[in-house]
Amino acid sequence: MAGTAADKKKITLIVLSGDLDKVLAAFIIAVGAASAGIDATMFFTFWGLNVLRKSGGRAKGNWMQRMMALLNRGGADRLPLSKFHMAGIGTRMMGRLMRQFKMPNVREMIALSKELGVKLIACTTTMGIMGIAKENLIPEVDAFAGVATYIAEAGESKINLFIS
Amino acid sequence: MAGTAADKKKITLIVLSGDLDKVLAAFIIAVGAASAGIDATMFFTFWGLNVLRKSGGRAKGNWMQRMMALLNRGGADRLPLSKFHMAGIGTRMMGRLMRQFKMPNVREMIALSKELGVKLIACTTTMGIMGIAKENLIPEVDAFAGVATYIAEAGESKINLFIS
Amino acid sequence: MAGTAADKKKITLIVLSGDLDKVLAAFIIAVGAASAGIDATMFFTFWGLNVLRKSGGRAKGNWMQRMMALLNRGGADRLPLSKFHMAGIGTRMMGRLMRQFKMPNVREMIALSKELGVKLIACTTTMGIMGIAKENLIPEVDAFAGVATYIAEAGESKINLFIS
Repeated sequence: MAGTAADKKKITLIVLSGDLDKVLAAFIIAVGAASAGIDATMFFTFWGLNVLRKSGGRAKGNWMQRMMALLNRGGADRLPLSKFHMAGIGTRMMGRLMRQFKMPNVREMIALSKELGVKLIACTTTMGIMGIAKENLIPEVDAFAGVATYIAEAGESKINLFIS
Repeated sequence: MAGTAADKKKITLIVLSGDLDKVLAAFIIAVGAASAGIDATMFFTFWGLNVLRKSGGRAKGNWMQRMMALLNRGGADRLPLSKFHMAGIGTRMMGRLMRQFKMPNVREMIALSKELGVKLIACTTTMGIMGIAKENLIPEVDAFAGVATYIAEAGESKINLFIS
Repeated sequence: MAGTAADKKKITLIVLSGDLDKVLAAFIIAVGAASAGIDATMFFTFWGLNVLRKSGGRAKGNWMQRMMALLNRGGADRLPLSKFHMAGIGTRMMGRLMRQFKMPNVREMIALSKELGVKLIACTTTMGIMGIAKENLIPEVDAFAGVATYIAEAGESKINLFIS
């Protein structure tokens, strides 16, 4: 596969979902691409911003923003499965299966991404309405940017995916 | 960013979802691309057709089509959030936050899209099974087309996204 | 449209969803592309693996894998709608509407895909954590592969979509 990557390709992923399975799929692809020498960029927006949130962070803003942030508690360790979450039982079971099959969890995926040079971008267009401020996000975030940056990156990418 | 768009790029989005957050993301991208001089086309299919439905429209067809249309009431003002809809409370809260942050709502996004020349296409392959007829859709729809048209458009696009 | 396909294009779809509507959309696109002479590859991962599961298959593995497989019963005839499943009523109604509008069901879509040379790939990275073994999958599967194969295929494709 490394052979076909001779011409510098690039991959850009939008991660709108904050569901464990979808976020994992996104990281598997980004890390897989980066391992093959392909530049990878991930844009986190809407519920996907949860991936980048500090676990203990306190929300700022007006009551609506704080309520949105409370409902939608983030942190890479807290992402629910998109199906069979079952008050956490299904999600915990998936977590155990992942460990058994030596699949990195989301926190490990973030670390792996950084090692491999995957760019993690937080979407400023949606941070406000999700009640998320810069100080609520983990230091691994490489940049804060909006749609113009996305369009520019995607316009140079061979593979563009939207993960909702 | 406008600089990188010198070679005419093109973006084609499939919008299968009728959820407020995902539909907004689709419009933010399409409008962002169009603002940068990139041709943008949006294909609305399945639940995404709700975006294009007239609010007061009455469904036609047999009882199953009418029931599907009733369950799945459309109109750009009625799209639910994909998470925390909470019988409308979460969705209304998001609407307020959007206004506060000066983010256009879906109805305004449609108007903005038309101004910027974004092409809005309704998928004829799924209109029937969703119980949606041409007269149920808003006049802003540019074309009615099926998968062959999509494949042709996407085949010429630099950025292709599937928003489910 | 066939005219624009003169230069050999290629399309690669990731199918993470096991929801009827999204899976149908994926097949409509893959079959549509293949009909236009475009090479199409579908990668099934996470819940999407349900599409490729034998109906009567019995899960192997430890109790967690068996429970995950039980919760998440597969088979192309059993996929639920992503909305309005309503304990099966909505999904059955959609099935009837599909027959009425002569839209092939998922089983027929798989047969059609094979006739047209669409490549069906099962994701080995996620089969384990979903409690799915090779013998649980239908013989129509062309290959078992992981992310490296996906990246290579997508890197050669004009159209890349992620169907979640």
